[in-house]
Order: sequence, then C-alpha cells, then structure tokens
Amino acid sequence: MSAYKVADAKNLIKLDAMENPYCWPEAIQQQWLETLKNSAINRYPDPEARILCDALRNSNRLPEESALLLGNGSDEIIQILLMALPQNASVIAPEPSFVMYKQIAQSLGLNYRGIPLLSDSFDLDLPAMLANINELQPALIFLAYPNNPTGNLFDAQAIKTIIASAPGLVVIDEAYAPFADSSFIDSLSDYNNLLVMRTVSKLGLAGLRLGYLIGPIALLEQLHKLRLPYNINCLTQVTAAFALNNADFLRQQTENIRQERSLVFNALQAIANIKPYSSSANFILFKTLGASADHVFNSLKQQGVLIKNLSRQGGVLENCLRVTVGKPEENQAFLKALQAALMLN
Amino acid sequence: MSAYKVADAKNLIKLDAMENPYCWPEAIQQQWLETLKNSAINRYPDPEARILCDALRNSNRLPEESALLLGNGSDEIIQILLMALPQNASVIAPEPSFVMYKQIAQSLGLNYRGIPLLSDSFDLDLPAMLANINELQPALIFLAYPNNPTGNLFDAQAIKTIIASAPGLVVIDEAYAPFADSSFIDSLSDYNNLLVMRTVSKLGLAGLRLGYLIGPIALLEQLHKLRLPYNINCLTQVTAAFALNNADFLRQQTENIRQERSLVFNALQAIANIKPYSSSANFILFKTLGASADHVFNSLKQQGVLIKNLSRQGGVLENCLRVTVGKPEENQAFLKALQAALMLN
Repeated sequence: MSAYKVADAKNLIKLDAMENPYCWPEAIQQQWLETLKNSAINRYPDPEARILCDALRNSNRLPEESALLLGNGSDEIIQILLMALPQNASVIAPEPSFVMYKQIAQSLGLNYRGIPLLSDSFDLDLPAMLANINELQPALIFLAYPNNPTGNLFDAQAIKTIIASAPGLVVIDEAYAPFADSSFIDSLSDYNNLLVMRTVSKLGLAGLRLGYLIGPIALLEQLHKLRLPYNINCLTQVTAAFALNNADFLRQQTENIRQERSLVFNALQAIANIKPYSSSANFILFKTLGASADHVFNSLKQQGVLIKNLSRQGGVLENCLRVTVGKPEENQAFLKALQAALMLN
Repeated sequence: MSAYKVADAKNLIKLDAMENPYCWPEAIQQQWLETLKNSAINRYPDPEARILCDALRNSNRLPEESALLLGNGSDEIIQILLMALPQNASVIAPEPSFVMYKQIAQSLGLNYRGIPLLSDSFDLDLPAMLANINELQPALIFLAYPNNPTGNLFDAQAIKTIIASAPGLVVIDEAYAPFADSSFIDSLSDYNNLLVMRTVSKLGLAGLRLGYLIGPIALLEQLHKLRLPYNINCLTQVTAAFALNNADFLRQQTENIRQERSLVFNALQAIANIKPYSSSANFILFKTLGASADHVFNSLKQQGVLIKNLSRQGGVLENCLRVTVGKPEENQAFLKALQAALMLN
C-alpha cells in the first residue's frame, strides 16, 4: 500500500483537481470576514454543526424525514461508512470511478471488487453488476453520479434496479451535482437502503473539506456513533454556512463553468485525433487517438498547464486525460497547448 | 455502543471542556483576517500542510530527525494509529484517562484493556502495567502526560520503564503540555517505539481541531498511508500557522491560566469537605467528601456554572468533579456557587 500522491502545481495553470477557479467577490469576502469575527476559535465547535446543517438542508431542499452526517470531505464519510461494515463484508463499485472507494475499503481490509464500465459509453454493465451483487451480497455499493473520471450520468433506471436488488446499502455519490441536471435526492423516500453523498468542494469550497451524507434517520443514527464527535472545525462550519446562505455568487460561477464546458467540449471535438466524452461534471475526459496520452500530458505540463493523466490506470482509460473546466483564459491556454502538443508529436 | 454525548452549555459559564476562555486581542484578530484574505477557499488545501508543519516544528522545537502527522484533533490521530494495527491487536491505557482511547479502540474491534491507576495518587500502577504488557503484548499503549481527568504527571521513570518494556508503540499524549513543565519530546531520539501526541486545543485553538503526532520518520511514513490525503482544511492550516507564529498572546493567556489554577486550587483546599488534586493541566479534579458529586454538579448547573461530572464513571472517580480553569471572574463565580451548593446540601 502506498500513500495517495498529489501533484505539485506551483506556477502551473491548475486544471487537474476539479476546482472552481473563481475567487470570491470582494463584498462577499468582506461580509465573510465580518462573520468570522464572532467565531470562538478558543471553544470546541458545535459537535452537531446545527447552523451548518440547517444551511445544507435549505440549499439542497432536503426531505424533512432525512438525516445528515457531515465529514471532512467525502473521504471521511466514505471511511465512516466502511468502518461501519463487518470485517468480512464486500464492497462493490463500478470502475473506473472515484479512487477513494477502493483505497479506503482496502485499507480497512474489506473485500472490494470493481466492476468494469462498458468500454464505449462508460455506462453501467447492469448484468455484470447484478451478477456480482448476487454472488458477493455486498454490504455497500458506491455509484458516482455523475461518475468521476468519466463525467457521465449512469442510466437512472439501471441505478434503480441496483438499489432494488442490493442486499445492503447503496451510496449515490453526487459530488458533481452542481454541474448535473439529475439527482437521487428526491428518490430518498422511495428506499430504505439509499444514501446520497454530496460535498461543497465542486461548488467552489474545496478548501473547507466538507462532505455530507443524506439518508434515513435510523441508519444515520448508527453511523453517527462512528463519527468523531468534533469532526467539523468551527471555521469550516461558519464559512460553509455563510457561503451556502449567500450562494448566488457560487451559482453564477457554476453557470459560467457549465457554459465554458460546452465551449471546451466543442473545441476538443473539432481537434483531429482527440475524442472528448460528454460530461455532466466540471471536467472533460478525452482520449488521444493519434498520440500517447503520456506525451500530451508532459507537453502540456511543460507548456505550463497541469491536467490529470489517467492513462496509467489502463483498461478503458488507456490514453485518457482529464481536464478540469477553468476560467475562459485558462481553457484557451489549455486548448492552445493541446494543439501544440499534438503538432509536436 | 452509543454516540459520544456533548453537554449543551447555552447561557452557562462554561468550565467543562478545558477550553482557554480568552478571545483574541483585536489587533491580532485584524492581522489574522488580513491573512485569511489570501487563502484560496476554492482550491484543495496543501495535503502536506507544509507551512503549518514548519510553524509546529518551530513552536515545539522539534528534533530534526522527527516527522509529523496532522489530524483533525487528537481524535483523528488516535483513529489513524488504531487503524494501523492488526485486527487482533491489544491496546492498553491506564484508567481513568482520555475516553477516546477506549472508545475508538473498541469501535474498531480491537482488544482494549484499561489498567486502574493507584487510587490515592492517580499514579501508574507500574507492576500492573508491566504484568499486562507481558500478558497482552500490546501493539499500542497510550499514556496521557499530564493525565486527563486527573491532572497529574505520571512518574517519568515509570513511563521510561514502560517504553523500554513495550513490544509495540507507546504514545505519550501531551495535550496539556502548555500547562506542564515536563515533556517527552526530548526523549524521542532515545527510543524507536516512542511517539508524542499534541494538540493546539488547550493552547487556545480548540475550534480549529488540530492535533499532531511526532515520531520517527520511518514509522510516521507508514501512518501517513492511512491518513486521508486532504484531512486538514485550508482555514485551519492558515489560522493555526498564523497563531503559532504570533503566539505571544497565547503564551500570556496560558500564563494567566496557570496563575489562576494556583488560586483556584488553594481556594478549593480551603473549603471543608472538598479534596482537590494537584494539577499540571488547565483543570482541577476534586472530590466531594461530604456531599454527593451529582448534587454538587446539578446545583452548580442550576446556578449557571457548567463543570464536568465524572462520578458516574465510578471507581477512583466516585464523587469526583472536574473544573476547567477559566477567567478570574468565572473562577470566582464557580467557587461561590460551589460553596452555595455545599451549604444547600
């Protein structure tokens, strides 16, 4: 087992980590700093983060009969979920998907199995999913919706079939919800084994490390027993609540990113030997058909643009790269560098 | 198993949680808010928290050849340490001590055993510790120094004997170091199985949830594999580094608390039927000899002062209460309420 490595992005245009590239408007920043003046850094934070939970309920329009669990990023929520399972439990996720499902499951000694996505559409292989559910009787299934790193929304009907067939919990990871037009939050009341996981990271608050899980009250009560009591610090509580209660600027930023996503996608489609995949997230996966992805990645980096090289994961991701949608000028710099990389090939 | 309960302290004088009662001087607060303006909330935090680690190294004068691991409070560090152990490992701690050792060890299914402290001095029962080490061959031993909730420093020679006898790791939890005159940081280089855990909570930054572990480089490298990569959010990183690099005001606050500790201790000693225990921390444990601790606790609460009732843990803590040292006026209010509680008995 090796530690999770994070690329050093000093002085590069950073399009590798699905971050919102925009800063806060100055008036909002001033208001935020005023709010922070009242935060008691010397006191332990509210262990139940009640004000923040109210803000999350409002901004996500959560059903009354659901409960919330907060974590330091989705990472901690994944860890809590997996720590709650018996030692011999099985966990299933499609692959490729968010790497922490596998990483944390294996670090806890659980039996993890990745089920390959269909290679052309990156959609779920429903027969394979159902066969593995039947064989392994997994205690937990992760489904990222939209999926990372492929960017697509899996077929909703297939997901519903999986939820209905699962003997254990199904966690729909909606980290990229701000960029998608579909969600399972409204389906929560239809199932007793469905949980929806979200984060404020992609909305523009990645620095705060705040993820949250939404699901049935009785179930979350059990998970809360494994949560460390003061896990969300006071500054994250105050800042996230402030941002969610003043979210117009974040929604505007999100809308800008969506528009840029279309422009970048169209530009990528117009480049010979580049195959972009349609995305419901704030990034675009693309395949280099004529050149090796390693070459393109390194050339981009040399030109000052950092994206994510997924090619070494192999399988359906061979020669695949992932670019986060940035500011217009960043996207233009990326596209220009990409064309130069392909010409230099 | 039940979730960790936290008392509601609304409108009460809060002397239950070992918090530093002082706010930040206005000039410091202004400087801090200026610093925050440059923090990129939209970006993921530095996964290695390098600037903060430098500040921690300087402020603790850490030996060059030691490494650091940061966590969301000591709680997360305890969790990482315990997750690193094999499933059938044993863990030992004296009792009573910090409750999270037992709570997290048991939640992970490890074999935890508490070894009672000597009932009169609250010091280590060294023969019992050594016998249990020999029997259980524990992978990990926790020793809080000073100990919570008793406030004393265990005999340093006994601790050294335990470190030398332990087949696994020994973690010295120095959460209360700002109020003690003794530490094992300078002993780190003498042992390859010794780790020192600290936190910024008692120094006055409880809201930030920042704990840290200091130990041998090769050992911490292994623990880092279990750390979630972005576990320390950007605001905690920036704020803790700022506070540590401008720590004169915190040191002054700490000094005030130490002086108040003497005054409160002497006042408690002068009250009939109250037996206070000498403390190297920012709290004082005391026993109610003539009245039940439950009665005293409830009466104090009714009078607007919240302390911690430890009596229900039984054993050596029967009829014991723990009061955090607060501001002079808070301590006076506590002492006055205590005398009233004893008279009402």
